[in-house]
Amino acid sequence: MKAVVYLPVEDKTQWWVEMLQSLLPGWEVTSMDDPGDPASVDFAVVWRPRTGDLAQFPNLRAIVSIGAGIDHVLADKELPAGVPIIRTVGTDLTQRMREYVALHVLRHHRDMPRQLQAQAEADWHAIVVPVAPNRTVGVMGLGNLGAAAAQTLAGLGFDTRGWSKSHKEIDGVTCFAGTEGLDAFLDGCEILVNLLPLTDETRGILSASLFAKLPKEACVINCARGPHLVDEDLLAALDGGQVKQATLDVFHQEPLPADHPFWNHRKITVTPHVASQIDAGTGGRLIAANLLEFAKTGTCNDVADAARGY
Amino acid sequence: MKAVVYLPVEDKTQWWVEMLQSLLPGWEVTSMDDPGDPASVDFAVVWRPRTGDLAQFPNLRAIVSIGAGIDHVLADKELPAGVPIIRTVGTDLTQRMREYVALHVLRHHRDMPRQLQAQAEADWHAIVVPVAPNRTVGVMGLGNLGAAAAQTLAGLGFDTRGWSKSHKEIDGVTCFAGTEGLDAFLDGCEILVNLLPLTDETRGILSASLFAKLPKEACVINCARGPHLVDEDLLAALDGGQVKQATLDVFHQEPLPADHPFWNHRKITVTPHVASQIDAGTGGRLIAANLLEFAKTGTCNDVADAARGY
Repeated sequence: MKAVVYLPVEDKTQWWVEMLQSLLPGWEVTSMDDPGDPASVDFAVVWRPRTGDLAQFPNLRAIVSIGAGIDHVLADKELPAGVPIIRTVGTDLTQRMREYVALHVLRHHRDMPRQLQAQAEADWHAIVVPVAPNRTVGVMGLGNLGAAAAQTLAGLGFDTRGWSKSHKEIDGVTCFAGTEGLDAFLDGCEILVNLLPLTDETRGILSASLFAKLPKEACVINCARGPHLVDEDLLAALDGGQVKQATLDVFHQEPLPADHPFWNHRKITVTPHVASQIDAGTGGRLIAANLLEFAKTGTCNDVADAARGY
Repeated sequence: MKAVVYLPVEDKTQWWVEMLQSLLPGWEVTSMDDPGDPASVDFAVVWRPRTGDLAQFPNLRAIVSIGAGIDHVLADKELPAGVPIIRTVGTDLTQRMREYVALHVLRHHRDMPRQLQAQAEADWHAIVVPVAPNRTVGVMGLGNLGAAAAQTLAGLGFDTRGWSKSHKEIDGVTCFAGTEGLDAFLDGCEILVNLLPLTDETRGILSASLFAKLPKEACVINCARGPHLVDEDLLAALDGGQVKQATLDVFHQEPLPADHPFWNHRKITVTPHVASQIDAGTGGRLIAANLLEFAKTGTCNDVADAARGY
């Protein structure tokens, strides 16, 4: 079997090549930029492949996304049709996302940005907030990661809602579904977490019209994909006070350009796409296991639904 | 029945007097500084009473602590002997403490202080940390608040330990007990949370010798009482790198004096005794319910063990 690897960062590609090679004895693992005979390549393991990258391999059996989302693969306008895309999920990713969502919801719930400001001024200023059962939080997107995040918030005691395309049932979470359920979901939702997949339907969903349906001074956390958010609408909502604070882990362009207004906005916390950062060791083991399973059986649990987009 | 109220902040006393009066129809509620005939006072509701304050009432049936701890009452060297002390606990206090502990453990776990520093420098610097199951956290003190905090951390996925004077059993938490169990509890404990009651045995327990038993670069969270901590030992441990970061909610003197070195120490997060801040509405309802129960039956669930100190 032969696998080629591509990530936008050159030195990371080589690192992944070597790690996967060590986990796949008997396979040939190379950089996509040095693939040998294109017809000999069975699998491509990629993050944000360049347009046309994948079309050069006529016998590709599957494409592996180094991450839970497949939008960065589907963005390739010359993507070969019908080739299965394998996601990299695993319990580690879910665990890390639970931690991130819990941390940032709690930060906004307890108003840590203002508390840290008080500390900077040596100001003994107690901020008394409602207890979590009197705080309504909502998670958009109830896939693996969103459902786990919602359950974690419910476990912390929050009044927790979820919203997804099709109806879900999650213990302790009030679930809303579809376009017709969106307004009711947003009404009264004080802290909003976005974990939707990025599709044509969800692109730009975090917009002025959505923010206007949240209660005044809501907080917004985006840990899905940058293009879910209309950047200028968020800046306007923060300036106007409709949104109080935001935490953003994902951006239209990553790394976030150094001159982007998000970096030094006092109402925005920026984290560098680490919410569910896969550590390479864990990610490598997950990917190797999926490749071995797919090579043997022609499929594996983590094959995505390309038509649906996730 | 007659109750007198005292808090160190004058305008808060009057606010509590009015609120409790509204919840106790038929009672007389006044400020301790204007008690009328001392012999007519049945109950005193206090936070940090002054020495001798309580001895002036010969017929006192019970003392109510506005908070979960009773150390601030026992500190009165002229405290009348044998008068029951009623704690103010309730599910709200426990819920708030769970939130605080989860928030600050997660902040240290995901190294938010360094992440925020990276943001201030517009530096796209991903900090990859272990997943919570590979992070060992420990809670000292397994009373109402400590047990709930430990269970919450276990629920978030952390490898969670607890330590208490006598042995406890808590689902998902590895429990250690007594002086003989302390070293094993501290060994490998990367994030330490103190929720011990303040007694002669626990005063100054957060000291250089304890910090030395933690792994290098451990984080310390004190949300119990200021005198648990030897301030200068923490500063030395932070400067020397044995302790990486600390979050402190309680202090020897509160409010923390404006010139105290904790305020602007870059490795210390200061919060103004808000971990389990009782909001006055909830606290008032809990206290009124305990007073009514005690007046009727001569006791109530929240009577503390003064000999034990909590």
